[in-house]
Amino acid sequence: MFTQATDKHVAVFIAEGMEEIEALTVVDLLYRAGIPCETVSITNTNAVASSHDVTVVCDTEISNTRFDFDDYDMLVLPGGMPGTTHLGECDDLTEQVVRFINDGRQVAAICAAPTVLANLGVLEGRHATCFPDLQQVLVDNGAILEQDEVVVDGNITTSKGMGTAIPFGLAIVAHYRGQEFADDLARKIVFAR
Amino acid sequence: MFTQATDKHVAVFIAEGMEEIEALTVVDLLYRAGIPCETVSITNTNAVASSHDVTVVCDTEISNTRFDFDDYDMLVLPGGMPGTTHLGECDDLTEQVVRFINDGRQVAAICAAPTVLANLGVLEGRHATCFPDLQQVLVDNGAILEQDEVVVDGNITTSKGMGTAIPFGLAIVAHYRGQEFADDLARKIVFAR
Repeated sequence: MFTQATDKHVAVFIAEGMEEIEALTVVDLLYRAGIPCETVSITNTNAVASSHDVTVVCDTEISNTRFDFDDYDMLVLPGGMPGTTHLGECDDLTEQVVRFINDGRQVAAICAAPTVLANLGVLEGRHATCFPDLQQVLVDNGAILEQDEVVVDGNITTSKGMGTAIPFGLAIVAHYRGQEFADDLARKIVFAR
Repeated sequence: MFTQATDKHVAVFIAEGMEEIEALTVVDLLYRAGIPCETVSITNTNAVASSHDVTVVCDTEISNTRFDFDDYDMLVLPGGMPGTTHLGECDDLTEQVVRFINDGRQVAAICAAPTVLANLGVLEGRHATCFPDLQQVLVDNGAILEQDEVVVDGNITTSKGMGTAIPFGLAIVAHYRGQEFADDLARKIVFAR
């Protein structure tokens, strides 16, 4: 059962070919933490197939006339290919990512998805990380590359890949509920480091 | 893209209220490893909601007349509540779980789901683990309780919870592709221990 603990909402953007574990680990952990979180399809349908042929039914679509970015406190971009390419090509989304970051609002991206931020120019001078094979894209776009599993630089949270999806989700939980709550949640899901 | 590496198939059983990360991490890692894996709804529809309100569209249903347990080499039971309760109440499934284990065929379960095996009597004298709060059920049914993240005892693989879903999935990958392949896959997904 969901027990709401904050009125802030988080949007996880779902593209065809997304990495489902990177996307859904955030949804799962935020649900457990009482943080409202919606999956938002960037396609015209709410059923979207992952890069591993898993079809997920999203809560809403970016094309839904009632969808409003300003209903959300944080935008989350999962990785995966070609999902990340589709995210980067979605002008409705990328315009809002730039606006959120410039307005000091929260944006989080994992695996290949931090390259979307890099290519938009919003990682210049910012500490960030991403999937190892793609880190040069961050460097080429002026980011200060870090090798931690999760990097939080003010309003931008980035992480490395499917294997760091839980630390990434827990960092988002910690942002809303505090580190102690996130550490306790890690114990409850039997996540050890 | 899926590159098939074995003709063995794995079935992941999906109940209403399953833990989606425990279920889908297996699907994700097996896809990456080239091991054919299908999600099998134990309900009468292929779209099933998780314990965190994520709806996943399954590849097939147990009620599908063309569904045959003997097409599979391994049966995987994810945890979550009430998903695990539903798995335990599904006679079509539990009869086959007993048959598989008695015939030396592969069964894997994570989080609360090893209690389904325990309650069927098939963990007696076997090394196993499960979600910490439920471990007494294993003890009460004669299992030799272990505290590793993943326990492999012959044809039975068990694991502790959402936070151990990746080690659980990697153990299944190792069964089919070997430990070196699984270790390499762990590196590729940036999973560190």
